[in-house]
Amino acid sequence: MKIVIIGGVAGGMSAATRLRRLMEDAEIIVFDKGPYVSFANCGLPFHVSGEIAQRSSLLVQTPEQLKARFELDVRPETEVLSIDGDKKEVTARSASKTYTENYDKLILSPGAKPFIPPMAGLEQAENIYTLRNIPDLDKIMAQLESIESGQATVIGAGFIGLEMAESLTKKGLKVTLIEKAPHVLPPLDEEMVAFVQAELVKNGITVITGQSAQSFENQGKTIILEDGSSLQSDLTILSVGVQPENDLAKAVGIELDLRGGILVDENYQTNIANIYAVGDAIVVKNQITGQDALISLASPANRQGRQLADIIAGHSSSNRGSIGTAIVRAFDLAAASTGLSERIARQNFEDVAVVHTTGNDHAGYYPGATSITIKLVFNPKTGAIYGAQAVGQKGVDKRIDILATAIKAGLTIFDLPELEFTYAPPFGSAKDPVNMIGYAASNLAQGVSDNVQWHELKDQLAQGKVLLDVRNPGEVLAGRFPDALHIPLDSLRDRLAELDKDQEYIVSCHSGLRSYIAERILKQNGFTVSNLDGAYSLYNTVRPEELIHD
Amino acid sequence: MKIVIIGGVAGGMSAATRLRRLMEDAEIIVFDKGPYVSFANCGLPFHVSGEIAQRSSLLVQTPEQLKARFELDVRPETEVLSIDGDKKEVTARSASKTYTENYDKLILSPGAKPFIPPMAGLEQAENIYTLRNIPDLDKIMAQLESIESGQATVIGAGFIGLEMAESLTKKGLKVTLIEKAPHVLPPLDEEMVAFVQAELVKNGITVITGQSAQSFENQGKTIILEDGSSLQSDLTILSVGVQPENDLAKAVGIELDLRGGILVDENYQTNIANIYAVGDAIVVKNQITGQDALISLASPANRQGRQLADIIAGHSSSNRGSIGTAIVRAFDLAAASTGLSERIARQNFEDVAVVHTTGNDHAGYYPGATSITIKLVFNPKTGAIYGAQAVGQKGVDKRIDILATAIKAGLTIFDLPELEFTYAPPFGSAKDPVNMIGYAASNLAQGVSDNVQWHELKDQLAQGKVLLDVRNPGEVLAGRFPDALHIPLDSLRDRLAELDKDQEYIVSCHSGLRSYIAERILKQNGFTVSNLDGAYSLYNTVRPEELIHD
Repeated sequence: MKIVIIGGVAGGMSAATRLRRLMEDAEIIVFDKGPYVSFANCGLPFHVSGEIAQRSSLLVQTPEQLKARFELDVRPETEVLSIDGDKKEVTARSASKTYTENYDKLILSPGAKPFIPPMAGLEQAENIYTLRNIPDLDKIMAQLESIESGQATVIGAGFIGLEMAESLTKKGLKVTLIEKAPHVLPPLDEEMVAFVQAELVKNGITVITGQSAQSFENQGKTIILEDGSSLQSDLTILSVGVQPENDLAKAVGIELDLRGGILVDENYQTNIANIYAVGDAIVVKNQITGQDALISLASPANRQGRQLADIIAGHSSSNRGSIGTAIVRAFDLAAASTGLSERIARQNFEDVAVVHTTGNDHAGYYPGATSITIKLVFNPKTGAIYGAQAVGQKGVDKRIDILATAIKAGLTIFDLPELEFTYAPPFGSAKDPVNMIGYAASNLAQGVSDNVQWHELKDQLAQGKVLLDVRNPGEVLAGRFPDALHIPLDSLRDRLAELDKDQEYIVSCHSGLRSYIAERILKQNGFTVSNLDGAYSLYNTVRPEELIHD
Repeated sequence: MKIVIIGGVAGGMSAATRLRRLMEDAEIIVFDKGPYVSFANCGLPFHVSGEIAQRSSLLVQTPEQLKARFELDVRPETEVLSIDGDKKEVTARSASKTYTENYDKLILSPGAKPFIPPMAGLEQAENIYTLRNIPDLDKIMAQLESIESGQATVIGAGFIGLEMAESLTKKGLKVTLIEKAPHVLPPLDEEMVAFVQAELVKNGITVITGQSAQSFENQGKTIILEDGSSLQSDLTILSVGVQPENDLAKAVGIELDLRGGILVDENYQTNIANIYAVGDAIVVKNQITGQDALISLASPANRQGRQLADIIAGHSSSNRGSIGTAIVRAFDLAAASTGLSERIARQNFEDVAVVHTTGNDHAGYYPGATSITIKLVFNPKTGAIYGAQAVGQKGVDKRIDILATAIKAGLTIFDLPELEFTYAPPFGSAKDPVNMIGYAASNLAQGVSDNVQWHELKDQLAQGKVLLDVRNPGEVLAGRFPDALHIPLDSLRDRLAELDKDQEYIVSCHSGLRSYIAERILKQNGFTVSNLDGAYSLYNTVRPEELIHD
């Protein structure tokens, strides 16, 4: 069998190597229009910062190595110009020639390419880059050599945008990050990325949200924003999103969806016989909503390539879909998510509840514990988990990986307290943050607790509810809600007479644990009360300007 | 309602605080015979080392705090002498008086106590300690003050034994660790703890396995071993296991199992009306074998206490059982396990397969990656996961927590590759070690690969199989199997003629990945071949003396 693969990075190369392990006699040709295959695309921003010091570290495998180990015929710098599905052949062009290559099976793994919005002055610019591959990286590194210090701008505050903003800061540049959405990391929810946004600002990055860059002047050195303001930039990274690389597929008549993704069945088969596709360019099923989705992540791409190899080799396998799990580091913080954000969950489901908890990455009594804030998005009637997000200095990846596993396995919020994790003081807690958020969600679902979200607080207070802050006087002095009552939790039972049973209360503390205890005391004493989810610490992160800091 | 709780640490205190949150009007009395409740028992060894510098850090909550916040009547240093199940009352003795206290519901959370084997000379010894609580810790700390340097001995190399051996070493003592079983950490399998054993030795600990301490002489300063040899010890820790604290339960006629655990139903109800029990002292269902088990871990104890509170308060809850997940740090390494070891799995199930893989805690191209060795124990016919163990410097807790979640959720080996984890270079890899071991196990289950375990190698070679080492010449020079053929993987296809199709081969490389590729090449070329699971690196850890190191 002769298998031709177009695209030699995650999906394509996973398919190629697995195919070889299963089909020693197959002829396997891998075309890539770029000079490198099997490179570490997720590592590119970390070479900019110098953390990955050697460029060569990013080149995971060379064509020569792939030939020696996997008997692959890898052809870099060779662009496939067209596909003839009837003749089962492709036309390819290298530096020296244009030729056809026939195939029995054709695998498309073209990936996704940076989306470049139409912007005046972009063509004349000499300092604006996207970052998809090694040649892109080389250009950025060359430009960095020539400027050393100065102003850098990153347009688009998604995962790559954030990594580039950090890397350029670490490189000594003064960085401005521009995001059209109301907050950085648009796939996550506003209050969770508020922690990240604060961390970026703390590290000297100017963050401009709710503003798009409109055009460029002065060979790109001047960026004009939506509101007419402008800023100077010596080096600009354009990272406003990606789109499926679908030109070849489109030309041969492969069905695409509206956003340009390649349509495949669960066996990665396109509508044309013997042509398959995997990776960032294909439309997959979101396993939570059941709807079509484009997910540009390395992990699913690798899995898909390998599964397709199994299918071609006659082993049973199929694409079950993806939930989307991702993480980004922002200086000393990490922010991660799995499944649906609250925003997307509410678009798809009727019954959606959320809860936030804050806990330590390991036992608080062992040195070095840092806090993790977790958000769980779930169905309060069935307990189904729609998604989770977390932010903190350490252990964020672990908690989201566990919750991603729980979602994939169909566990509910009621199962989370049952999970048994490794516990010794340097590693965790007897009640892990994942257990705790399961308890908190179960309390909501079972009516033991009611919560008010940070964005609901103002309205509810305006409607006449009273905020009761149960923190200690010292905490209140350092920062507080305007117009709140203050009764420290440990005095609450003694001071119930100060409260009015005809009044509705919202209780808050620092992170929500003490206020939950206060809520239970009050509820059982006949008061109408709900708990400010995430409490002061969350509110102070997402809306600090509304609080009083003496 | 009046609820009396005996035992104020994990299970008891979780029950007490949850009861208060659900039953504001209940009278809740907590008896504890020790001076402290709600202390961090898992933290005790880390105060010995000085890592947890302040003793006060271990005292999580005081009776005064528990009174103020939870309206609990906590009575430390008060021993319950007897229970009268008919009268529904207990008799308790404090320093000043003996009195009875009636109850509506009685919760026993007595915990487990150190097992002390009958050993001659133990009673006369003045330097032998167990470590269960703060008073035990205080005695050890006082003794340490007086000796500063010298010889310490830890008898029993379980989790606490290992932590104490490390702590005493860090304190400047020369430590000997004695374990009756053939290897340290008997709950784990031999080859996995070989990494730990090597780490202990590297850090100056003398490890004696397969030997029990038989008796003491010279006020405990001389320890006589099973083989008649002796050693001197200034400070000795006895940590050979724990047993349910069941005296009270026994006396009142509560049914116990053969090993002394308190028998309860899934609602924690003992055979006596209105008496419940939780924590280390109760018999639980092992969720994998379905059999009765004693599991002494903080996480299940806390969960059980909280669940019992729900049950008493009229919420629905039940004990689904435990799988047992644990971790221990040994200097720069961590070793963790969940579910069944291979040994226990083979005792309980007919179809048991194992696979070992080694991968990086995060992307190898990002600095600071360290390797994790994972072992998966599973049913090769159904894919059911029986257990997992891991050892490495970083990220061991995360992988075992994920696998513990997978086991609890009933995922199979075929689901592990489907799991989507957070991936950015500082945090993980596009194919996480958990995905990879899922692939490896699936390859075995589907017949794509066959493996030979480290302990089977000698026999199989003796039966005439030939070991083919596909590492590079440089690796082979540094250390090798005796009598192995050497063909580097990347030359294998060109040198197939050197091999004999009538000969059965076992292939090995460094960690098992290249040898798997070699296995696939050979199998597809008509050779009979299997892969040495874990390869050279595992064998070199568990049986270094059988290899050649020039």
